[in-house]
Amino acid sequence: MTVNYPSGKPFNDSKFKKAALVQRPATFSNRGMTLEDEINKSNQYYLRNNIAVIHKKPTPIQIVSVDYPQRSAAKIKEAYFRKASTTDYNGVYRGKYIDFDAKETQNKTSFPLKNFHEHQIEHLRMCLQQNGICFAIIKFVYNQSVFVLKASDLIHFWDLQSSGGRKSIPKATIDKNWLSSKIWY
Amino acid sequence: MTVNYPSGKPFNDSKFKKAALVQRPATFSNRGMTLEDEINKSNQYYLRNNIAVIHKKPTPIQIVSVDYPQRSAAKIKEAYFRKASTTDYNGVYRGKYIDFDAKETQNKTSFPLKNFHEHQIEHLRMCLQQNGICFAIIKFVYNQSVFVLKASDLIHFWDLQSSGGRKSIPKATIDKNWLSSKIWY
Repeated sequence: MTVNYPSGKPFNDSKFKKAALVQRPATFSNRGMTLEDEINKSNQYYLRNNIAVIHKKPTPIQIVSVDYPQRSAAKIKEAYFRKASTTDYNGVYRGKYIDFDAKETQNKTSFPLKNFHEHQIEHLRMCLQQNGICFAIIKFVYNQSVFVLKASDLIHFWDLQSSGGRKSIPKATIDKNWLSSKIWY
Repeated sequence: MTVNYPSGKPFNDSKFKKAALVQRPATFSNRGMTLEDEINKSNQYYLRNNIAVIHKKPTPIQIVSVDYPQRSAAKIKEAYFRKASTTDYNGVYRGKYIDFDAKETQNKTSFPLKNFHEHQIEHLRMCLQQNGICFAIIKFVYNQSVFVLKASDLIHFWDLQSSGGRKSIPKATIDKNWLSSKIWY
């Protein structure tokens, strides 16, 4: 399948062409790990070795009621999950701002865009405007493959939805255009 | 009071000399606002006007028990506050990584360093190593004055503690050396 930009220009950024779609090595030691675990491990490695400072943001929570018992820690008795207004990860690498989100899908043939919500896309759009380095890491759980999508590409597909475009990015497009997990190990 | 670096070099960074210690204007409309409110307002302004993308990180919470009632939102029944492993605010301005924390004190004569905790100082140290733009915003509630301290200066005072240095930064040193609130309004 060929996807073009609205201008008709073919969608195929050479900078982001797949580097090497190499099969994963024979070891399956990471098989059970969630994408979040894998990224946290990477971030710890970067931190320990002074390569980058990247943290996952805490889950935003609306606190309704808190107990302050004597002689022990404050206990939150009622609270609700809120939608994040940003992506989950950000940080700094050599002075540059890094911003990304990570999503897993059980799908085999495409990546459903509904894994993102509007706020996150708008956040990426604004960070891009500020010249941040913005992307998404997506993982197909069925074969444990991980891809890096430039935020601008993600936004491109996101925006196409409102003019009748697909609600997902076909796996074939992803295989063809984006960096595979190989670079992350 | 004169504070020197351990090398004996006088502590007085000309780049960060007070810009103008102007008295606050006659309007007291912001008087009741907390520092957090003020900063959130600034960040919203930056966001709306495409000046910068800066967000406060959610409070980190350890969730112990969650109820999933039918037909309504998941309810957190038991959770506890955790210590933040980073500062509260970060974001991007023209590609550059920005990182800071904001602290209020009721003290009149000095800023107690115990307002920060070790993790936050270590985080600032690592972000500085990655060439992030790092600082602290401190507010003296008694006279509503707000100052910007370079992270490197904060770390300097923090580290002096372990060699018998003061547990606080005298107000006089702050008045003399750092940017006053004037630039923030």
